[in-house]
Amino acid sequence: AKTYKIAVLPGDGIGPEVMKQALKVLEKLQTIYDFSLETEEADVGGCAIDKHDTPLPDSTIELCKKADAILFGSVGGPKWENLPPEKQPERGALLPLRKMFDLFSNLRPAIVFPQLADASPLKAEIIGKGFDILIVRELTGGIYFGQPKGKEKDRGFDTMLYTREQIERIAHSAFKAAEKRNKKVCSVDKANVLSTMVFWRETVTEIAKQYPDIELSHMYVDNAAMQLVKNPGQFDVLLCGNMFGDILSDEAAMITGSLGMLPSASLGEKTTDNGAIFGLFEPAGGSAPDIAGKGIANPIAQILSAAMMLIYGLGQEEAGNRIFKAVDKVLTEGYRTADIHSEGCKKVGTEEMGNLITQAL
Amino acid sequence: AKTYKIAVLPGDGIGPEVMKQALKVLEKLQTIYDFSLETEEADVGGCAIDKHDTPLPDSTIELCKKADAILFGSVGGPKWENLPPEKQPERGALLPLRKMFDLFSNLRPAIVFPQLADASPLKAEIIGKGFDILIVRELTGGIYFGQPKGKEKDRGFDTMLYTREQIERIAHSAFKAAEKRNKKVCSVDKANVLSTMVFWRETVTEIAKQYPDIELSHMYVDNAAMQLVKNPGQFDVLLCGNMFGDILSDEAAMITGSLGMLPSASLGEKTTDNGAIFGLFEPAGGSAPDIAGKGIANPIAQILSAAMMLIYGLGQEEAGNRIFKAVDKVLTEGYRTADIHSEGCKKVGTEEMGNLITQAL
Ligand SMILES: CC(C)[C@H](C(=O)O)[C@@H](O)C(=O)O
Ligand SMILES: CC(C)[C@H](C(=O)O)[C@@H](O)C(=O)O
Repeated sequence: AKTYKIAVLPGDGIGPEVMKQALKVLEKLQTIYDFSLETEEADVGGCAIDKHDTPLPDSTIELCKKADAILFGSVGGPKWENLPPEKQPERGALLPLRKMFDLFSNLRPAIVFPQLADASPLKAEIIGKGFDILIVRELTGGIYFGQPKGKEKDRGFDTMLYTREQIERIAHSAFKAAEKRNKKVCSVDKANVLSTMVFWRETVTEIAKQYPDIELSHMYVDNAAMQLVKNPGQFDVLLCGNMFGDILSDEAAMITGSLGMLPSASLGEKTTDNGAIFGLFEPAGGSAPDIAGKGIANPIAQILSAAMMLIYGLGQEEAGNRIFKAVDKVLTEGYRTADIHSEGCKKVGTEEMGNLITQAL
Repeated sequence: AKTYKIAVLPGDGIGPEVMKQALKVLEKLQTIYDFSLETEEADVGGCAIDKHDTPLPDSTIELCKKADAILFGSVGGPKWENLPPEKQPERGALLPLRKMFDLFSNLRPAIVFPQLADASPLKAEIIGKGFDILIVRELTGGIYFGQPKGKEKDRGFDTMLYTREQIERIAHSAFKAAEKRNKKVCSVDKANVLSTMVFWRETVTEIAKQYPDIELSHMYVDNAAMQLVKNPGQFDVLLCGNMFGDILSDEAAMITGSLGMLPSASLGEKTTDNGAIFGLFEPAGGSAPDIAGKGIANPIAQILSAAMMLIYGLGQEEAGNRIFKAVDKVLTEGYRTADIHSEGCKKVGTEEMGNLITQAL
């Protein structure tokens, strides 16, 4: 039986309370399946600034280096909002972690759970029974990291840059994900204006030849922003660079109407001694400081992030899918946290939702 | 009485047929107001490629140089889609025109006409009685034009660059527009990641001091993409750089549900001999080749583009506002083209819609 080391970084705001529920779910799974998890917590984000004067302390980095996976909560809050950008919890913790561990492949599902189709801001006739998009976002290149970037007295500048290798590996991620889904990849670019994106389109088209059963299409980012609103159901896998993926994944998440339900995975190429693909797994939503500590936050995004960790990181697909099924069951039974509550449903708090999902496993 | 020279560039697809209606409306206005328009047509886009082997012939440029304003239709279509990007109608005509005439200030209203609130893909409780956002997009700088940009064997790259001057002048556009509206400017950036955008935020904040009655806020672009879906009514003026403005203005346009209604203006700093601010005025939607020539296209976006030309370009505010009122009246009377038709309304074609608006002036 394998023992995986998990670096648990709860972070700020609702992070700690929803993380507790995810750990409870993982605890229970170890009594069902033949693997075990050794979890260790460390500080990250605002709470790390308060204690260690940096959002990403060395001790936290060391813990991550020894781990098979990072289970991440969320960081940030009003207390640290006026720090210079590079010292802020979000940028100061997330960007270095991504870069340091080469977590280039960001998988962001935008799923409407049929039980929650009502929560979408889109009209019922557009949402239908829901949709299921997987956004595959390149996470360690593009304009986020391209050099030179800087600010002078009278100008600011950044460099959007993609190498063939960077595009190829994220394209492979997208095509491989599509093979297990509806076999469609729509690659988002702005090839009518940006040279980087002309190169992006050519390279993606080239890689597509290795996946003859996948249907590849291309769409300009401005049109993609429109199509997500007009007809999100047309998409299966959306392949995006770092910047466009940032914008479109958030737009798509909001369109589902249930941000508090959405997990994400950021994967690298490194395989750990345990055969795991090293990655960071975190909810799509933020730290929601306004409701932190009240026991009302929705823990499902964090719990499903643990499921993604099992499926995409540790290779424990069956256990991970079991979490998805348990969440589905609890929703079908009508339990809802405040953020997704609607008439006729049973309103529960963070802890009770965690217990219900644990029992449903 | 002034005589303005208007360069009329109908372009491709539905361009010519909707332009005809706009010209009809302008014709009528000259019988009411004390100004006259001298219109001259020229080729642009795909039809110019076919005739002159370039989407922007010299003769067209010459005509524009002599004009007080450019009234633009729309360009592009499947016939020219496989040309290299820089030869394509959209990029090969629009980008050079913007740059050549320094049309840095792009005003894109995203308005829900109360009569058409139903057409929005968003739920009625979010749309309410509609919303009225003005997106002020910088149009001649940023990553569209920053140097160096290029494509090598194994990489592609572009430069996002803004100078203080470029930011200052577009910020002034936004604040001035807000003064005539609800006195709120939300500046969109990605200051948590991009140096250009740190500089953008600082510069906009500085300029805001000259407009003490305007409320300035800042929002990250990913959040703005979400907020437009969640609660578009929170915005008055959205100030954006070139790339973010491209994405958000299209998203906002789609959220109104009536792309065929939305005009736009692209203004420079140059004042013509006639006292006009030189600019290019065009519908927000595309050339819609699938319905071209069928007489069913919605001419309202083109007609309102003519209205924006009168208001923002020629300084004939009263005449321009009269067009807006005529459109409102015709909508209230229940007339609709196919794209905005709903039960109980009277369906009309392109020409009839043009006639109705002309009569309602
Ligand atoms: C916090 C920020 C740097 C980050 C990003 O832009 O990547 C966030 O928006 C995200 O999408 O994970
Ligand atoms: C056609 C294209 C170059 C253009 C742009 O990106 O600016 C278009 O999308 C627009 O918004 O006017």
